[in-house]
Amino acid sequence: MSRRYDSRTTIFSPEGRLYQVEYALEAISHAGTALGILAKDGIVLAAEKKVTSKLLEQDTSAEKLYILNDNMICAVAGMTADANILINYARRAAQNYLYTYNEDIPCEQLVKRLCDLKQGYTQHGGLRPFGVSFIYAGYDSHRQFQLYQSNPSGNYGGWKATSVGANNASAQALLKQDYKEDCTLQEACATAVKILSKTMDSTTLTSEKIEFATVGKTESGEIYHHLWTADEITALLKEHKLGKEEDPEQDS
Amino acid sequence: MSRRYDSRTTIFSPEGRLYQVEYALEAISHAGTALGILAKDGIVLAAEKKVTSKLLEQDTSAEKLYILNDNMICAVAGMTADANILINYARRAAQNYLYTYNEDIPCEQLVKRLCDLKQGYTQHGGLRPFGVSFIYAGYDSHRQFQLYQSNPSGNYGGWKATSVGANNASAQALLKQDYKEDCTLQEACATAVKILSKTMDSTTLTSEKIEFATVGKTESGEIYHHLWTADEITALLKEHKLGKEEDPEQDS
Amino acid sequence: MSRRYDSRTTIFSPEGRLYQVEYALEAISHAGTALGILAKDGIVLAAEKKVTSKLLEQDTSAEKLYILNDNMICAVAGMTADANILINYARRAAQNYLYTYNEDIPCEQLVKRLCDLKQGYTQHGGLRPFGVSFIYAGYDSHRQFQLYQSNPSGNYGGWKATSVGANNASAQALLKQDYKEDCTLQEACATAVKILSKTMDSTTLTSEKIEFATVGKTESGEIYHHLWTADEITALLKEHKLGKEEDPEQDS
Amino acid sequence: MSRRYDSRTTIFSPEGRLYQVEYALEAISHAGTALGILAKDGIVLAAEKKVTSKLLEQDTSAEKLYILNDNMICAVAGMTADANILINYARRAAQNYLYTYNEDIPCEQLVKRLCDLKQGYTQHGGLRPFGVSFIYAGYDSHRQFQLYQSNPSGNYGGWKATSVGANNASAQALLKQDYKEDCTLQEACATAVKILSKTMDSTTLTSEKIEFATVGKTESGEIYHHLWTADEITALLKEHKLGKEEDPEQDS
Amino acid sequence: MSRRYDSRTTIFSPEGRLYQVEYALEAISHAGTALGILAKDGIVLAAEKKVTSKLLEQDTSAEKLYILNDNMICAVAGMTADANILINYARRAAQNYLYTYNEDIPCEQLVKRLCDLKQGYTQHGGLRPFGVSFIYAGYDSHRQFQLYQSNPSGNYGGWKATSVGANNASAQALLKQDYKEDCTLQEACATAVKILSKTMDSTTLTSEKIEFATVGKTESGEIYHHLWTADEITALLKEHKLGKEEDPEQDS
Amino acid sequence: MSRRYDSRTTIFSPEGRLYQVEYALEAISHAGTALGILAKDGIVLAAEKKVTSKLLEQDTSAEKLYILNDNMICAVAGMTADANILINYARRAAQNYLYTYNEDIPCEQLVKRLCDLKQGYTQHGGLRPFGVSFIYAGYDSHRQFQLYQSNPSGNYGGWKATSVGANNASAQALLKQDYKEDCTLQEACATAVKILSKTMDSTTLTSEKIEFATVGKTESGEIYHHLWTADEITALLKEHKLGKEEDPEQDS
Amino acid sequence: MSRRYDSRTTIFSPEGRLYQVEYALEAISHAGTALGILAKDGIVLAAEKKVTSKLLEQDTSAEKLYILNDNMICAVAGMTADANILINYARRAAQNYLYTYNEDIPCEQLVKRLCDLKQGYTQHGGLRPFGVSFIYAGYDSHRQFQLYQSNPSGNYGGWKATSVGANNASAQALLKQDYKEDCTLQEACATAVKILSKTMDSTTLTSEKIEFATVGKTESGEIYHHLWTADEITALLKEHKLGKEEDPEQDS
Repeated sequence: MSRRYDSRTTIFSPEGRLYQVEYALEAISHAGTALGILAKDGIVLAAEKKVTSKLLEQDTSAEKLYILNDNMICAVAGMTADANILINYARRAAQNYLYTYNEDIPCEQLVKRLCDLKQGYTQHGGLRPFGVSFIYAGYDSHRQFQLYQSNPSGNYGGWKATSVGANNASAQALLKQDYKEDCTLQEACATAVKILSKTMDSTTLTSEKIEFATVGKTESGEIYHHLWTADEITALLKEHKLGKEEDPEQDS
Repeated sequence: MSRRYDSRTTIFSPEGRLYQVEYALEAISHAGTALGILAKDGIVLAAEKKVTSKLLEQDTSAEKLYILNDNMICAVAGMTADANILINYARRAAQNYLYTYNEDIPCEQLVKRLCDLKQGYTQHGGLRPFGVSFIYAGYDSHRQFQLYQSNPSGNYGGWKATSVGANNASAQALLKQDYKEDCTLQEACATAVKILSKTMDSTTLTSEKIEFATVGKTESGEIYHHLWTADEITALLKEHKLGKEEDPEQDS
Repeated sequence: MSRRYDSRTTIFSPEGRLYQVEYALEAISHAGTALGILAKDGIVLAAEKKVTSKLLEQDTSAEKLYILNDNMICAVAGMTADANILINYARRAAQNYLYTYNEDIPCEQLVKRLCDLKQGYTQHGGLRPFGVSFIYAGYDSHRQFQLYQSNPSGNYGGWKATSVGANNASAQALLKQDYKEDCTLQEACATAVKILSKTMDSTTLTSEKIEFATVGKTESGEIYHHLWTADEITALLKEHKLGKEEDPEQDS
Repeated sequence: MSRRYDSRTTIFSPEGRLYQVEYALEAISHAGTALGILAKDGIVLAAEKKVTSKLLEQDTSAEKLYILNDNMICAVAGMTADANILINYARRAAQNYLYTYNEDIPCEQLVKRLCDLKQGYTQHGGLRPFGVSFIYAGYDSHRQFQLYQSNPSGNYGGWKATSVGANNASAQALLKQDYKEDCTLQEACATAVKILSKTMDSTTLTSEKIEFATVGKTESGEIYHHLWTADEITALLKEHKLGKEEDPEQDS
Repeated sequence: MSRRYDSRTTIFSPEGRLYQVEYALEAISHAGTALGILAKDGIVLAAEKKVTSKLLEQDTSAEKLYILNDNMICAVAGMTADANILINYARRAAQNYLYTYNEDIPCEQLVKRLCDLKQGYTQHGGLRPFGVSFIYAGYDSHRQFQLYQSNPSGNYGGWKATSVGANNASAQALLKQDYKEDCTLQEACATAVKILSKTMDSTTLTSEKIEFATVGKTESGEIYHHLWTADEITALLKEHKLGKEEDPEQDS
Repeated sequence: MSRRYDSRTTIFSPEGRLYQVEYALEAISHAGTALGILAKDGIVLAAEKKVTSKLLEQDTSAEKLYILNDNMICAVAGMTADANILINYARRAAQNYLYTYNEDIPCEQLVKRLCDLKQGYTQHGGLRPFGVSFIYAGYDSHRQFQLYQSNPSGNYGGWKATSVGANNASAQALLKQDYKEDCTLQEACATAVKILSKTMDSTTLTSEKIEFATVGKTESGEIYHHLWTADEITALLKEHKLGKEEDPEQDS
Repeated sequence: MSRRYDSRTTIFSPEGRLYQVEYALEAISHAGTALGILAKDGIVLAAEKKVTSKLLEQDTSAEKLYILNDNMICAVAGMTADANILINYARRAAQNYLYTYNEDIPCEQLVKRLCDLKQGYTQHGGLRPFGVSFIYAGYDSHRQFQLYQSNPSGNYGGWKATSVGANNASAQALLKQDYKEDCTLQEACATAVKILSKTMDSTTLTSEKIEFATVGKTESGEIYHHLWTADEITALLKEHKLGKEEDPEQDS
């Protein structure tokens, strides 16, 4: 029955559902998990990298975490090619705002701009929704540190901690259990790495399998964002006694 | 039988119905209830927020109530992404009017502009109707305080009290029973919170689950609109002995 | 069999019918009745308002009768959102004509302009016909008082008395029986209110359930149009001993 | 079998037929008959008006006969709304020609222009053919008095006498029998009214049921066109002893 | 099986056929025969006119033979409305060339221009092929007298003698038998009229049933084209003892 | 099964095939054979002309071999109307290049331009692929004499000897057997005529059934291209003792 | 079941898959293998050429390896015509960047530009994805030597060694086994030729069946790219004792 209504973005089903948007969410549910945690002094984004072949893949380019502008980063889950289009759009929008008003675009406004674009792909014919969810971490002077999540429908919301992607449900459950409202960025990183270690399909964590990024404030009060290097991730894993023994089957 | 006619906005069924518009209404019937009550000295809009996870969601951004311009606010029920597109459109239309004529756009005119846009999405191919209903509260010098409601078909009407969303039918019934024509804004707020407490699916009300906004007149005769803070909502709940005991299951 | 040809405006059926236009007429047959009567000294338009909830609806805005320009008004039956689009179009066309030629647009020309727009929606793909019929009442120096009716196909005709909407058939029958060619506007109003009282679904008439408008000539020979206030309608009802006792079930 | 090919203007059937054009002709076969007769000193066009309700309809506006420019008139059979679009087009084309070349457009050229427009609606997707046939009567200095007929396919031809619409076949048969090549305009009018009286569905003719128009030459040699008034038609009917007794059932 | 591929111009069948083009050819096979014969001193085009009603039809306008420019004429078989569009196009193209280069367009170039337009209608969606075949007769200084034929696919070829339309096959057979390479224009006319008399469905030829046109050279060496009058055709028929006795059933 | 995927150019089949492109190739497989042979001092193109009627067809215009610019010719197999469009395009592209850079366009670049156009018709909706294959023979200073072949997919390749069209397979087999890498143009012509004589459906060759063209260098080193006259072809046939006796059935 | 969702690029299947993109990948799986290996002092790309007929094909033009700009080359597997369009696009993009910024476009940016174009063809209606995968080898000052791979979905990734095309799976397996991280370009070439010799369908390698290209640094530190000549390939084959004996069946 549902099949009559699931092949176009311009059709509501009799129950008022947009099946193509739901199918796009399904595409995201196979992607590596990404999560974000809001701390009182910053935000951490962490993501599982789906490495097909550790030996041959090059890890020079971030796959799941992207810088949008000077005070905003994001994690993506879903179809990378779709994400690239949206990230390009966001970067241009952020630069335009900066150029016009000489200040960074407020975080929510940038999120909204992206979501308005996404919405259009769920209402007009001859298109499919973008098959990608985002977690945004940013800072602006209005609301300080902020964490948002958006999905293919163009909906978005503010979160203290959230996750998207393959093991989203269990990650959310762990977040609810472990999240403490007034945690520091360091504690948030610890929580993030612990949750990733439990939800990822691989048995051991290595720096090749995850990506980490933080938005924070330097002691002098300046905002920084930082994509972690492999060494920093390894150090974090070591600190939390995760990923120590090498996984002999990781490349099968 | 009806299926032959329900997959496009450009098809009338043999009974003269537009099924896609009806399906869009169906989408709204799953959204949190929103209601508006017109008092002699102002208007109150109240809405139920569908909180998935109280612990992790951030409530910095209003989800159901929006400011359109200096003398008009609205409540939405339905697909948030669709609502954002329409609210953007309304804000731009209001600012253009202000810029051109140097006075605020009359309330009904703004409502009509939005509805004309909505109508277009029910008559032209390759589009779906906007899956969102609005309650508008505003003030202009022509007709003083005004309350409107519009739906996906592009129809709108003036109301003394109305509601949209999930428990719309029971909310309407309660409104008919409780509404008094010459009530003050304070009495209207009381009515609104009482009706929400009865129609909402959660067993107890908290400031996290509802949003409140009022349009009124200051003593000096100026029009103001006000999105209530969590504290103000809590005070109102306390005043009406609602939402006292904490709901232990609210986050399951 | 007919189903092969009824889903597009761009298909004739083998019998040369346009089913979508016929279905649009069906949409109109559920709308409140509207009627118009041409008198020797003016025209009356009257319409049944479908009030869902007498208690809560606001009746500030006319729902069925609209002013098009200084010497022309109209009654609509069908989808209000569609009607709004067409009325906007007509108002702009009338103002353009006035601006260009410095005189009011002749009535038939305005009707024709609207109908040409309507026709386009029955011949081009990716559109549906406008689901609305109009009765136009106007005055111009060429033909004095004039009454027209148009429907979704874009056809129109001149009438002495006509009706559209739900109880159209019985209203037409009553008009044929009661219409007198040389009646005065006052007599026409009496006829209109009597016919409405017989064809409307509600058992009693109140000023909230009907709308009245007249085009006439002042004693000084100037043309006026007038949307009746609730008081004027009540007076008319009282005069004709209609709608006296309150209907206790009107809001069920 | 034919059904595979009959739903689009852009499909030839295996036998090389365009079914949509044939269906459009079907739409015309339900319209009131119209006929034209070429005399040596002018042309007469006559048409049956389908009056739904003699009492209430206003006959101020011609329904079947239209003036195109100073030396050309036409009769239409089929969908009036479609005809209006084409007549507007023809009038503009004629005025443009006059403005550009300072002489009236040759008759055949105007017919051709209309037919080229019609043809486009039989070859391009997303459109349906115009559901209307025309008989054109005109005069120009090249070929004197001329009578043309065109149909939804965009074909046209020159005729001495022709008819379109509901009782087309019997009208043609009568024309063949009664037409005399060198008749005067007066004789042609007599023939026209006699044929109409035989082919029309109503039992008696009245001036309300038919329209008459002539193109001729004044004694001073000027070309005139003339839409007959009700009185002139009544006189003609009386002259030919047609339509004398009133038809008591004409308005059932 | 073939039905899957025969409803669009943009589909090849598995055997590489374009069914819509073939169906368009089918449309031509019902049209009156047209033929052309190249003589050493000119070209003759002859065509059968399908007269529905000899009595009533006016034969002022050529139906099958058209002048394209000063040195080129053509005969058409198929849908007249389609032919008109193409002939307009050709005439404009010829005039543009003349205006730009101050000499007549070479015959083959004009044929090619028409064929390129035709081809587009067999390759792009939302269109149907032109349902018309042409025989072109022309003269230019490059190749002297030339005879071409084109069909709905946009293919064309040079011929010494060719035919299109209803009895195309038998006409071709007769042409092969009777054509002599070095015949004079007069002999060619004789051949043409003889072949038409054998292939036409009517039993006797009259000047009303056929059209004749010739391109030739005057004694002073100027090129002329000439559409024959009824008298000239009658003379030709008499000369060849064709069409003498009147056909009593020609108008049934 | 394959039928689900074979009706549009915008659909890959599950095996990654584009059926419409394959069907277009099928259209070419019915066309007359064309072949090209690269010699050390030039290139020969030869093609079989499908003469329907030797007696009546005019052979003034080449049907299978075309000149593209001063140093490039081509042979086509497939739908002639499609080929004309592409040849026009190529000629314009070559002239534009010449005008811009004042030197002839390099052969491969022109081939590529044509192929890019062809490719577009295999990837965008509402179009069908061009039903034509080309063999290109050209000379430029970069790579001297060059022979290319392209097909409806937009693929092309460089060849020493190749063939397209009806008896393509046997022609290729013969080419492999007879081709000698360092042959002279004269030897290549001999090979070409021998292969044509073996693969053509007619039993005897005549100058009317084949076309020949060569690109070569004059003794003074200038590049020439040459479409052979009937006499030259006849001489070649005589030289190789082909086509001597007349074929009595060639025109059945 | 899957068939409902596999005929358009604008449809997600219920599992969130884009079948048309997967089918496009299938098209690539029939193409000749291409592989790339990153060495510490350069990159080698190698590809199998599918020679249909060794005797007749000309190997002047590279078929699988292309130069994009001064410091980037690529190997393609899939539909050559599609690849040409993308390579044109990339070359223009690279030149534009060079012209605007006066430095070579960073490798990843060029890859991204191509991939953004590819992505568009997977999200918009009326198009099919590009049926081609690329391996890119380049050098820029930011990241030195880099190897990327992209596929029809518009996804891309950085690799140390990778392969695409027909025997992709076995090539990847061999790469994993044989690849050494710090190999020199010479060792990489040896690995490449060994893997090709094992995965190719032909039993012996010859210079006609494979293409080789390298990006490296001259001793003076300048970047060069080099498409290998047949002689260089033969020397490499000889060096590794591959392809010695001639394959007698290579041209069957």
